[in-house]
Amino acid sequence: MSPKITGELLRQLRQAMRNCKYFSEPLQAYIVPSGDAHQSEYIAPCDCRREFICGFNGSAGTAIVTEQHAAMWTDGRYFLQASQQMDNNWTLMKMGLKETPSQEDWLISVLPENSKVGVDPWIIAADQWKNMSKALSGAGHSLVAVQDNLIDAVWMDRPERPSTQLRALGLDYTGKSKADKITTLRAKMTERKITWFVATALDEIAWLFNLRGADIEYNPVFFAYAIVGMNTIRLFVDLKRLSDPALRDHLQLDSPSKPELSIQTFPYESVYTELQAICAAQGPKDKVWICDKASCALTQVIPKAHRSAIPYTPLCLAKAVKNATEIQGMKMAHIKDAVALCELFAWLEKEIPKGNVTEISAADKAEELRSQQKDFVGLSFPTISSVGPNGAIIHYRPLPETNRTLSLNEVYLIDSGAQYVDGTTDVTRTMHFGTPSAFEKECFTYVLKGHIAVSAAVFPNGTKGHLLDSFARAALWDSGLDYLHGTGHGVGCFLNVHEGPCGISYKTFADEPLEAGMIVSDEPGYYEDGSFGIRIENVVLVIPTKPKYNYRNRGSLTFEPLTLVPIQVKMMSTELLTQKERDWVNEYHRKCREVVGAELERQGRKDALEWLIRETQAPKGTL
Amino acid sequence: MSPKITGELLRQLRQAMRNCKYFSEPLQAYIVPSGDAHQSEYIAPCDCRREFICGFNGSAGTAIVTEQHAAMWTDGRYFLQASQQMDNNWTLMKMGLKETPSQEDWLISVLPENSKVGVDPWIIAADQWKNMSKALSGAGHSLVAVQDNLIDAVWMDRPERPSTQLRALGLDYTGKSKADKITTLRAKMTERKITWFVATALDEIAWLFNLRGADIEYNPVFFAYAIVGMNTIRLFVDLKRLSDPALRDHLQLDSPSKPELSIQTFPYESVYTELQAICAAQGPKDKVWICDKASCALTQVIPKAHRSAIPYTPLCLAKAVKNATEIQGMKMAHIKDAVALCELFAWLEKEIPKGNVTEISAADKAEELRSQQKDFVGLSFPTISSVGPNGAIIHYRPLPETNRTLSLNEVYLIDSGAQYVDGTTDVTRTMHFGTPSAFEKECFTYVLKGHIAVSAAVFPNGTKGHLLDSFARAALWDSGLDYLHGTGHGVGCFLNVHEGPCGISYKTFADEPLEAGMIVSDEPGYYEDGSFGIRIENVVLVIPTKPKYNYRNRGSLTFEPLTLVPIQVKMMSTELLTQKERDWVNEYHRKCREVVGAELERQGRKDALEWLIRETQAPKGTL
Repeated sequence: MSPKITGELLRQLRQAMRNCKYFSEPLQAYIVPSGDAHQSEYIAPCDCRREFICGFNGSAGTAIVTEQHAAMWTDGRYFLQASQQMDNNWTLMKMGLKETPSQEDWLISVLPENSKVGVDPWIIAADQWKNMSKALSGAGHSLVAVQDNLIDAVWMDRPERPSTQLRALGLDYTGKSKADKITTLRAKMTERKITWFVATALDEIAWLFNLRGADIEYNPVFFAYAIVGMNTIRLFVDLKRLSDPALRDHLQLDSPSKPELSIQTFPYESVYTELQAICAAQGPKDKVWICDKASCALTQVIPKAHRSAIPYTPLCLAKAVKNATEIQGMKMAHIKDAVALCELFAWLEKEIPKGNVTEISAADKAEELRSQQKDFVGLSFPTISSVGPNGAIIHYRPLPETNRTLSLNEVYLIDSGAQYVDGTTDVTRTMHFGTPSAFEKECFTYVLKGHIAVSAAVFPNGTKGHLLDSFARAALWDSGLDYLHGTGHGVGCFLNVHEGPCGISYKTFADEPLEAGMIVSDEPGYYEDGSFGIRIENVVLVIPTKPKYNYRNRGSLTFEPLTLVPIQVKMMSTELLTQKERDWVNEYHRKCREVVGAELERQGRKDALEWLIRETQAPKGTL
Repeated sequence: MSPKITGELLRQLRQAMRNCKYFSEPLQAYIVPSGDAHQSEYIAPCDCRREFICGFNGSAGTAIVTEQHAAMWTDGRYFLQASQQMDNNWTLMKMGLKETPSQEDWLISVLPENSKVGVDPWIIAADQWKNMSKALSGAGHSLVAVQDNLIDAVWMDRPERPSTQLRALGLDYTGKSKADKITTLRAKMTERKITWFVATALDEIAWLFNLRGADIEYNPVFFAYAIVGMNTIRLFVDLKRLSDPALRDHLQLDSPSKPELSIQTFPYESVYTELQAICAAQGPKDKVWICDKASCALTQVIPKAHRSAIPYTPLCLAKAVKNATEIQGMKMAHIKDAVALCELFAWLEKEIPKGNVTEISAADKAEELRSQQKDFVGLSFPTISSVGPNGAIIHYRPLPETNRTLSLNEVYLIDSGAQYVDGTTDVTRTMHFGTPSAFEKECFTYVLKGHIAVSAAVFPNGTKGHLLDSFARAALWDSGLDYLHGTGHGVGCFLNVHEGPCGISYKTFADEPLEAGMIVSDEPGYYEDGSFGIRIENVVLVIPTKPKYNYRNRGSLTFEPLTLVPIQVKMMSTELLTQKERDWVNEYHRKCREVVGAELERQGRKDALEWLIRETQAPKGTL
């Protein structure tokens, strides 16, 4: 990996900072955040501006260029990678270390008095803008919105914004028509006396219109905005995408059923001026809903007195609670996904002893097997396929220069998932194809105990997911161990594999309570640096349950695993499991055998079926 | 309980609102918060302004009076009591119910345009002021600081502010001299480039100067402020209190050891003008530390550019981590407290069958027995002594009209504690003196399992207490049960029984991580409305522990119970306990027998010793 040569680029950028045609005075600094105008987690190549200017291509990082300095902040996952990808023009700012200044503090320490710091207001979220602006103005500087992106100005071969074909989803996949979704949204708006709602998150817009795209790898979304009023629906999208008659029909563009459900379409770029026009025509009591993580640019169009910035939009909340059709689709997707993984593991068992399987070829095989399943669209995130010490790198992605060969001597961890038209999957299994060490088994068993403690937890309605996080850690903590990531995230239905507003993590307090129909991952782990990594991840569905009592009529919830892939018994120190935990494993394996076995049989995948039966029938006396 | 007649008082208050001599225009509304100028949890009679104006004397509530309306907000604990204590002039605003408006929303709905809402800036915290002010100005009104309290203006027989005798504590009780505490504080100030620190919380000031008072019932504190600079220490207190030569000696008022440790004393009321003078003389880079919960009045004296408002002051953080002397004192206090309680329970066992013991007489007996112990000062909070259905009222305090007789048929819950010169106690035991029902035993056992799950928890250094809260609930949740309060609070050492910055609760995210030397309560419960209440509370000390492994060298912590009072085995469904839980109970009882038994022996308290031995020797086959 050789670093990107950035001297000339920085020269050009600094020139643009001095001669910014959209701003009368020179800028003393320019901030280049990760991310796009929709605050997406994954971004399209045209939005990889931070990577373009500094060379570092990890998922998180912010670059800041001043007249004298260039610095890039990223977290512990990426220290090594960033230091390899950036040349000497750049200072790596290691976030999380005590000696590393915050971006604000660093700017204040290097800027001349009364400096102007520029940022593209479309790619900085309103809440981040607020914090940065406050810190800078407290020190006599000012943060200024530079409408035209200065990176784009020096990026000669910048890719086009993708405009992939849109896919309309029928009721058999979505379970709820876009008309019903709009009606529900408007009911929420009426309840809160809101007159306009601005949708900026790509997955929310895809969900609302029952449309999918492929603009961003792994995420079946498309670049768009939407503004919904009580009688109008405005969709902002590359209009060329709407020429397909079937699509026009789906959106009822030419013959809306009711006037208030008719969709007016506008070019993607016109959202700013349209929102301005809407705000200019507002009554004194009109209120506009927008997510507090939306771009600063769009947020500030709405006058403060009319703005109601909320952490989770009504679409985000509605989307998180899956309906019966979506749940059925997610179940089907997970059965197909389990078929592919059973086949993969049966294949690995045969092939590994030959010594020809690598992290990359195993990941490729997993993709190939998934792609044979009905309604497969693509992967839901880059496969983490890791052997031995690579498994301890939590966000590892095999590259030719790190690629290890699978063997009978090391632990193998594979975290992978796919997009099917009926659902999204995300599963991690940790296996040993030879004989695991006592320590590996011990750690695996603690992780399994944590996985079960969450999966089998019973908790009252209204409980937030973060209150369950410690259940996943208790067995590890008891032995002085832990893992430094959250325990679970929300999962979309043929949408983003990471979605809000719920999750299971010690890191947040702002998650929304878990509700029946929500879907999250349950993925505790343990990572022994330089040696091995363990993670056991199922996607689980929140379901109602009826324990013995019902305090204050609140009702109780628990989880049902959607992922149905055997958990390797060979890795368990079964003597560390309680009877309740053994029963959980046996019942889980019974269900895998029954449900996935039937599908393997139907698909005539004999080897995988044999493997499944072998892996789910615990040897007598062990479980 | 008959309501307070408030018609004439409200007339006078409204007249004061119209003719406020300190404010040119009339006020359309006046807010009367609970609390004093130090944001104390318990307050002195002279500060019970909300009670004076509306009659409601619960610990939490805010009254707002407009020209037409008078409304009082309180929470579910107090709905019944407030409705009984307030007359028809008042509307009870039931917080937590969906239909109840917030104070801001209600004000906006009833006020005429462009209204002025007054509040005493000394008794509203800076953060509350900010929120209220923002909401009101967003609706065209304004919140104004009325320096003279309008309740005081109409309160003819308002009590004097207490000025009790001060008690100096030597090193044998405090373990750290005030000079050392000042030096540590100044080191923190230097580290953060802070030039002045303003102490407003009464327990922090008492701790800093190793002084105690008795100005507020149950809390050994005294009314004072302190301002500490790098070379000066200013103490604001009723100067009459400082005439005692021993006290002057303790504070080295007449012969300070070093100039920078000399204490300048000022009248209590002059803190405002002194702080003004300090701020006026500040350099451009000077920064003043103040708690963000300090009064709006004092906070706003400090210009925003110089103000560093923090959630927990360095004194609050330092005070929370007890030193070896304090820990030893707390242990001694808990042994004495256990002696008193063993004697109480032995006495109850004999007396209850006679039918003459009531909630009130049992509480009085507990106080009498505690008062016989060395260095007893007073109770640390009003004793909750409750029988049967009264036990389900979480903040119950027996009154003549609710007083029940203890019997062999109902569960008895006593939550009580004391102030000793060497430490503060807080313990809850739930007992049955006849034969508990199967359901009572089942619930008690779930609560016990929760208590043990917290007490025996092992967790990494740096863990916040709120991450342990769910451990206390898991057994209850499994059966569909729960309790609607937090699990634990910080406990002071001969200081307030409730203190920050740590605790164990699902309600907060802003607690500071647990550290060895911190002391918290562990008190899960279960409350069956109309029937019984169960709570098992120990005060526990955070201690280091060494489990099998030590991930990333972080080290691990657990708890050591300081409370040593038997937990009634008769109330346990022992078949529901795991072996680990039984071992915990047996080990706990062994320690109670050994440690408290020795002290009972020493004090010659035979009956209590017999009771202790009986209660801590589990019948064979049950535990």
